[in-house]
Amino acid sequence: MPRRIKLTLEYDGTDFFGWQVQDRPKEGKGARRGVRTVQGELERALKKLTGASVRVVGAGRTDEGVHALGQVASFTLPDDASVSTEQLALALNAHLPADLSATQAEDVPEDFNAMGSARGKIYRYLIFNRRQRSAVRLRTHWHVRFALDVAAMRAAARHFVGRHDFTALAVALAETQSKRAQAGKRVLETVRSIARAEVTSRGSYESTEGCEITFEVEGGGFLYKMVRGMAGSLVEVGRARQAPDWIAEMLASKDRRNAGPSAPGKGLYLVRVMY
Amino acid sequence: MPRRIKLTLEYDGTDFFGWQVQDRPKEGKGARRGVRTVQGELERALKKLTGASVRVVGAGRTDEGVHALGQVASFTLPDDASVSTEQLALALNAHLPADLSATQAEDVPEDFNAMGSARGKIYRYLIFNRRQRSAVRLRTHWHVRFALDVAAMRAAARHFVGRHDFTALAVALAETQSKRAQAGKRVLETVRSIARAEVTSRGSYESTEGCEITFEVEGGGFLYKMVRGMAGSLVEVGRARQAPDWIAEMLASKDRRNAGPSAPGKGLYLVRVMY
Repeated sequence: MPRRIKLTLEYDGTDFFGWQVQDRPKEGKGARRGVRTVQGELERALKKLTGASVRVVGAGRTDEGVHALGQVASFTLPDDASVSTEQLALALNAHLPADLSATQAEDVPEDFNAMGSARGKIYRYLIFNRRQRSAVRLRTHWHVRFALDVAAMRAAARHFVGRHDFTALAVALAETQSKRAQAGKRVLETVRSIARAEVTSRGSYESTEGCEITFEVEGGGFLYKMVRGMAGSLVEVGRARQAPDWIAEMLASKDRRNAGPSAPGKGLYLVRVMY
Repeated sequence: MPRRIKLTLEYDGTDFFGWQVQDRPKEGKGARRGVRTVQGELERALKKLTGASVRVVGAGRTDEGVHALGQVASFTLPDDASVSTEQLALALNAHLPADLSATQAEDVPEDFNAMGSARGKIYRYLIFNRRQRSAVRLRTHWHVRFALDVAAMRAAARHFVGRHDFTALAVALAETQSKRAQAGKRVLETVRSIARAEVTSRGSYESTEGCEITFEVEGGGFLYKMVRGMAGSLVEVGRARQAPDWIAEMLASKDRRNAGPSAPGKGLYLVRVMY
């Protein structure tokens, strides 16, 4: 009997051109790298392990440079796959590259779909705040060299919590809606529910060691580049370019030009997917 | 007037063949990489910035792969160096590679020597404990796949605190003593004082997210590879191959063969140097 699998994955996104196999730019960074994707590496490892071509679905299509601590993939193992579900993560790790690891494999019902069955996600965004750049956080944090007011950012983040239209934080929304219309799909819902949006910090900007600022957000679903727009907007507040209450006005405007710039992918982590 | 400088440095040791310029192996990893050292990169940046050949001294000669959050270097800037001490770290960072950063520069008395003036050091060793390897901690933690008993490691670490002869945790000690004798130097003191040796943890081995274990040790001085020997010995206790009290016996034996294997360099950080 074919086995339906839920696989939890961890990756350092630095050297991946995102999750999805079908991103194939003719020019630019992706083309130069030969479009190395997480999905591609996982399917390659599954082929080596089982001999079969197994197509996987991911819970979130993380972008170039974005990391994951708890990405989830679903797929069906062929009838003759001899590896047990308990041993699957370890067996896959023998075939996966060092910057991608399987952390857990579970048997799930046949209709489980990593994307469609997801009920919520937790994302984390890491900022390193010091005048001098950090050599050990090069791949893991966004370096902001201007002093940030963490208390103001904490107050600002509260405005994300609740049900809001997040059009102002979405990227390429018009394009997405037009593609969906052409495919006969419903208009994408831009109203989303955020259960939690918290800013914490450790250290201080003035110290030689600097300050690590963490923004963690939990919600039912997120629009394309929404968390990076949130983080970029919080930094506008942290730099005192905007007051904390501006977040509410910016969301109400439903205009992307009013939000802060997208924070870079290197600071973003898909932490957990809830089912 | 020449200016004496104390410079604090941070680096990701992964792609460095350690601190010291004069390590030049004819074969092996170092030779392949062209012996890229922290000291070499710093002296190169100082040359670019000042036009002069400036020789630097480091507080601790970190080995291949070992990281630093607060390494300290001392050097004398030539009379005609136009950069202010306040701007020195930022100016150097423009010339240093991404995996090495200057975090602070201070004026110090002429007789200050980063190594000779040091009164103590803090080292940190990071272990990641989970059955499956971690993709995002590849450069930063030692992965131990066997479940570790953190409480036993904590009890074991207490035996390091105080004044002890650490001969059992030193590497290449006979060679060092023979070189010192040839150079007319005094015998290297193997009795060292450890002020603090603490084990903390976050997470659990059983969870998909795994467990991060931190060993932090503070002392007046450390023998070659002593902290890695401490970390390796703590893991022997964590794996229940030895009881916590074995640490005391092992130290008393003064025999390197009784200690645990050296933990890999990738988990080790020189955190701070005290003056």
